Amino acid sequence: MTADERLHELGIELPEPPSLPFTPRLRPVVVHGEVAYLSGNGTFDVTGRVGDDLTVEQGYEAARGAGLALLRSIRDELGSVERVSRWLKVLGLVRSAPGFGEQPAVMNGFTDLIVDVYGEERGLCARSAIGVAELPAGLAVEVEAIVELG
Amino acid sequence: MTADERLHELGIELPEPPSLPFTPRLRPVVVHGEVAYLSGNGTFDVTGRVGDDLTVEQGYEAARGAGLALLRSIRDELGSVERVSRWLKVLGLVRSAPGFGEQPAVMNGFTDLIVDVYGEERGLCARSAIGVAELPAGLAVEVEAIVELG
Amino acid sequence: MTADERLHELGIELPEPPSLPFTPRLRPVVVHGEVAYLSGNGTFDVTGRVGDDLTVEQGYEAARGAGLALLRSIRDELGSVERVSRWLKVLGLVRSAPGFGEQPAVMNGFTDLIVDVYGEERGLCARSAIGVAELPAGLAVEVEAIVELG
Repeated sequence: MTADERLHELGIELPEPPSLPFTPRLRPVVVHGEVAYLSGNGTFDVTGRVGDDLTVEQGYEAARGAGLALLRSIRDELGSVERVSRWLKVLGLVRSAPGFGEQPAVMNGFTDLIVDVYGEERGLCARSAIGVAELPAGLAVEVEAIVELG
Repeated sequence: MTADERLHELGIELPEPPSLPFTPRLRPVVVHGEVAYLSGNGTFDVTGRVGDDLTVEQGYEAARGAGLALLRSIRDELGSVERVSRWLKVLGLVRSAPGFGEQPAVMNGFTDLIVDVYGEERGLCARSAIGVAELPAGLAVEVEAIVELG
Repeated sequence: MTADERLHELGIELPEPPSLPFTPRLRPVVVHGEVAYLSGNGTFDVTGRVGDDLTVEQGYEAARGAGLALLRSIRDELGSVERVSRWLKVLGLVRSAPGFGEQPAVMNGFTDLIVDVYGEERGLCARSAIGVAELPAGLAVEVEAIVELG
């Protein structure tokens, strides 16, 4: 089953690009040989700081939303989410309240989605999760990635 | 027109390396095949936090200054800024006051410079902009990058 | 002398994996061609914020501990630390107290270890050091890396 078929089977609709309160000058996806670099992305459905404004569960949903936004970028820029043969490395940025240290549990919202769609062999990858002070327009989670193209 | 000629046309002088208050153990540029990794860089001309000490416009100048510092590293280590055939991916770290969420507008100071020098085809790339608590020696903006060599 | 022999000569024992208070879904190392991506890692021997809870020297030890944890990941996943022919790029995340700006001095704890084990030619690499608000489970330092395989 391709990743596109799996998305369909899971009943997942990829979100439309949000209307941003700013105009970032960037490319969502840059391809170099077999590798693609994906710009940081997130969902404006969940904003605030995890650990005070938001629970870990809400942060998990924000990380999942960042994954959906990245899948949309891949589909829009490369034609199909199946173009990604393997996820190599992700950096997960969690807007964190003082003393909040459960960034890995939050980022599992991203990884669970990617593994659901691509399977563990292709979807489980190198990952760092860190707590940042602020993110664009109050995003709770932003994720950037390096992927392999098939 | 090469990127070097374009720098000249724009009347841009690349800054001298600053005398740092610390001795970082790193290489400014590491080449692996067609890819070069650039260490995080910034300008000590603009220090402080964007959103309270500094305006968005001052942050934009700090991001531009980080771009000039990276161009200097490229010229010094690789002989010419034209050696970079394409910018692949940048990570922009903006020292942010609580509640500040305009990191993309700040990072446009970097991207506007790079696109001015290299053109949109070669200069516009994957980008993440995030808000961090602190940066070395109070820098307002630090940028690291992965580039393609021609 | 190989990197493994050098570790032995220095009397360095690589630490056991810690029992984590969370279950991160990730691979410690992902290989793509000649490049390996290493997940962010740290040591739970040193937790807290550098600049108030911890001195620069303690932060330096935390960064060294992150390096030991990455070397253990390399050995466990790739069979030997000698498999890494060259360090390409590291991102060092230092949990920083307000106003703390000596992240590069902290990250030298990582770089000094890697250069001790691999030598300057193979171990000195592109590096960014930044100050983040929070890290998983209160880690003082987290380091992720991109390395070349021989």
